[in-house]
This record gives sequence, structure tokens and C-alpha cells, in this order.
Amino acid sequence: MDSLMDNISQIAIVGTGLLGVSVGLGLKAVGYTGRIVGIGRRSSTLDKALKTGGVDDVSLEIQPVIRESQLVVVGVPLGAFAEVFQSIAECDHDQLTITDVGSTKVQVLDEARKYLPCPQRFVGSHPMAGSEKQGPEAARADLFGGKPCIITREEDTDTHALKTIEQLWHKLDMALLYMSALEHDRKASAISHVPHLTTVLLIETVAQLGGWDIASTGFKDTTRLASSNPPMRADIIAANRRQIIEAMDVFRDLFDQMYTLISQDGYQQLLDRLQHDKQLRDGWLQRYQQAITRHADED
Amino acid sequence: MDSLMDNISQIAIVGTGLLGVSVGLGLKAVGYTGRIVGIGRRSSTLDKALKTGGVDDVSLEIQPVIRESQLVVVGVPLGAFAEVFQSIAECDHDQLTITDVGSTKVQVLDEARKYLPCPQRFVGSHPMAGSEKQGPEAARADLFGGKPCIITREEDTDTHALKTIEQLWHKLDMALLYMSALEHDRKASAISHVPHLTTVLLIETVAQLGGWDIASTGFKDTTRLASSNPPMRADIIAANRRQIIEAMDVFRDLFDQMYTLISQDGYQQLLDRLQHDKQLRDGWLQRYQQAITRHADED
Repeated sequence: MDSLMDNISQIAIVGTGLLGVSVGLGLKAVGYTGRIVGIGRRSSTLDKALKTGGVDDVSLEIQPVIRESQLVVVGVPLGAFAEVFQSIAECDHDQLTITDVGSTKVQVLDEARKYLPCPQRFVGSHPMAGSEKQGPEAARADLFGGKPCIITREEDTDTHALKTIEQLWHKLDMALLYMSALEHDRKASAISHVPHLTTVLLIETVAQLGGWDIASTGFKDTTRLASSNPPMRADIIAANRRQIIEAMDVFRDLFDQMYTLISQDGYQQLLDRLQHDKQLRDGWLQRYQQAITRHADED
Repeated sequence: MDSLMDNISQIAIVGTGLLGVSVGLGLKAVGYTGRIVGIGRRSSTLDKALKTGGVDDVSLEIQPVIRESQLVVVGVPLGAFAEVFQSIAECDHDQLTITDVGSTKVQVLDEARKYLPCPQRFVGSHPMAGSEKQGPEAARADLFGGKPCIITREEDTDTHALKTIEQLWHKLDMALLYMSALEHDRKASAISHVPHLTTVLLIETVAQLGGWDIASTGFKDTTRLASSNPPMRADIIAANRRQIIEAMDVFRDLFDQMYTLISQDGYQQLLDRLQHDKQLRDGWLQRYQQAITRHADED
């Protein structure tokens, strides 16, 4: 089953941040014996990546590494994809399978189609794993295990490339989900991008009204995403602007309904609403945790 | 220093839920040797409370227990305080020190003043500790340790009662903060009540737009409060309606500013804003964690 990955003697990881280096660490932890080379723009980050053991070698130059690789994992900020794809295109390496770990998928796919000589061999991925910490020093071999990974399968996706990418994430013990780039971006705005924005707005609310001195664990969990990497978040928002605005419209309608309900002291309606929402969240959490457990059991 | 608590031979815990029973467990864990009696309305809950070891005895009747106690900790839902205070008042026990663990303080204080014969001996407390789990079976001796506890000190608060309540929370290793009931409720709306509402609205947003299948740890943390006890939350919202509406007004203004910024693709302004908010949150988190560590070191 892992035959395609076995034929890959070198993987290029472009962007040696949290996710890129965790891919390297995770592959080594499950016995991948090929060579893994990290590519980055800063020597200091590359040095840190090398120290983790997640990459065998590092390079400031992308093209010499790409020419010797069969698989590329792009883990750069969303704003840097166009440049990376252009560099890859110049290598004229038509047997390359390419994936990424970007948090939005429509813009990445558009850029792959625009720049890559063989965009059918690009298979977008979004492993749903992360941390509010960043950089190679936060990378972990088990970052991905049991978590969902979305693979954006489009009509023209190359079958061989798709299978290779499926095997990559299977090796890292991820639960694969398939959808179009657009469906991904719609869902991600609801479960990730708007939630991040609400955490930021909660921080700003406390900055105006006070309360830092009495904030505790509930506030800490609810606002965790406000500590995530600002340039990464700004890139995500810029890349997924249209879907985020649509989800913000939905959120604001719900907010206004809630505001009216509380203003009018509608106790029973409020209670019903809170109970319904608790059921929805508890139901999701149970399915999510069962999926992780089931996945772990299968190994 | 603990002389006042040493003179208390019996403590009545009215309401044997998570917080009430955790007070009992915590006191026993630090060697309190007096008797602790739990009072509740359901035998099944009282049985569970007794099994935890956090209370020595239980009772369905409040007045016989109050008559033999020197200290009362009220841990009932906010909607039940009036009835509890009326029962206590009928005991005509003017040496009783009373505190509570309610999540809002203005309504509780108003009711203490309305019903209690000696409201100066009521000292409101809000230990900032909890769980999305509920009931005596979720109680823990270390629930409070290192966390902030607000004591609402009003102008007419009895000094002896205040010292007793300070010693109670010190025994449970809490970091005491003093403010008026109104200041507490303002701050709590910003750091707890509006955050809870945003988690509920995020659940409702995903219910409309989809995304349950790709939601993972970020969504889990950001929406944790949506799983908290609906009647408790509805009671809090009803009790603190005015302050919550004011905080929701602030949140909505900030939301609208953010919406405009994203609609207009104001990348640099957005990035600046996210960076500023991250600094605010990281700064708070550092102070919060240092306070917990320092507190633990002092013991």
C-alpha cells in the first residue's frame, strides 16, 4: 500500500516552520528512510529545523533541491505561494508531486493552476493540526496523529499524485477527508477563521472594559487563537476574504438575535437556545473524540 | 492567622454542586477538622456529594443545619438565592457569616440586603474556577488552588465576617482580589459572559454553514464554554443583563470595525491590529501564569 511513498527517495519541504518540520519529524518517526531536505529563507530558521532532526539537510536555494526530489510539501505563508510555484515551474520537473499545508485552498489552487507546468500533480492538503506556537522549535512528530486532514480533490487531479499524497498523510496517521477547495474554504471560515476573529474581538473588548485581573481558565481557552501568528492570520484572512465576510454576516445576524433576546429578558427562549447549542457542541465533540480514538485503535 | 476559621465548628454548604463540594474537599485536604454539612433539594445529588467525602453529612432541610453552623457557603443557582436567604433569615442566627460562589454579584448583594437580618455579615465571593462539567461528581480538592477569587467588599461589610471569608479562601490557596459588586459584574461581562455568548454563536454559525467534519482542536478550545450548564448560564445572563448588554455593544462596535477592515482589504491595518491584540493576550497570559506560579511558591 505504501509503494508510492517507497519510490520517493527525496522530499523537499519548502518552509521549515511548525507544520513543515512536523511532517519531517512524523515521517522519520514512522520509519521513512528517504532523504528530507528543508528549504527556507533564513539560515537561523534552517539551523533550528536541522537541530530538530526533522530534516536531513537544509538549503537556502529551492531549485537544486527540487530537481533531486520526487515530492514537495509547501509550508510557506499563503502570501509566498506564488513565488514558490514560479521557482518550481522553472525547474521543468514534470514528475514532481506537490502538496501544501496551507490554511486556505482556493487561492493556493488558483496559483497552482496559474504557475505550475503540471497543476494536475498539485494536490492541496490542509492538515487540521497546529499550535499557537510557531517555528521549527515547536514542531512535534505527533502533531498530526488522529487529526483530520482535508485533501482537495478536483476533477482534473492526477490519480498517481493523489495516491502519493494520501499515503503521505496516512503515514502521519491522519483521517482523510475529501472536498473541493471552495467547500474547504467555506467550512474553514466557519470553524476556524471567524472563531479566530471572535477571540481577537474578545481581547479588544476586555482592553476597553477591563477585567484582566479576574480573567482565568475560561477566558484563556476561549481566547487561545488570539495568540496565534499575526502574519499567518492576516494572510489567511486576505486569502479567504469572501468566505469570511459571508460567515461574519451569519455570525452578526445570530449576534443580533441574541442581543434582542437578552434585551427583552426572554429567559425560556434563551435557555432553549443554550441547551440546543450545548447539544450540538457536545455531539460534535463526542464524534470528534471517537474518531480520534477509533483512528488510533486501527493502527 | 487562621484563628477565625478554627472557631468554626460547623460549615453549611447550601447547594452541593461542583463548587460547593469542591470547597468541602479543599478544606478537608488542608486539614480542616470541623464538620461540613451539605444541603440540597435532591437526595440523589446529596448521596453523590456524601460519596465524594467533601461533606460529613447531608440534609434536605436547611434550617436545622444553619442553626448549628457558624459559616454558610451558598452555592445554589443564582435564581435560588432569594429563597435560601429567606430561609436563613427565619433562623434568626445573628452570628452567622455568609458567603457565596455565585457568578454575578450585584443581584446576590441586593437580595442579601433585602432578606438577611444582618446583611453586613454577608461577604460575596466569586472564586474564578470552574469546569464545563457539573455536579458533585466533578468536584476536586484542587479546583481553586492558585486561581483568583474576588471578594466584594462594600462600605458596610462587617470586618469580622470579611476576615473569616478571607481565611476561608486563603485555606483553599486562592489569590484574593477586592472590588465592589458592580465592578465585578462589569468585568465579568467582558471576561466571561460575553465570551460564553460568542462560543454559543460560533456553534450556531457552524450549524448554518457546515464544517463539523473538519473542526479540530482550535475550534474545540474556542467553543469550550458553549458546553457549560445552560440553566446556570441563563441565570447568569438574567442576573447580569444590563452589564452584558453594555459589553455586547462594545463587542459589536469592534466587530463592525473588523468587518469594514476585512471588506476593504486593509492588510497592514489588520496585521497591526492582530499584532497588538496578540501582545495584549500574551501579556495577560504571562502575568496570569506568573501569579499562579508565585502563589504556589509561597505556600
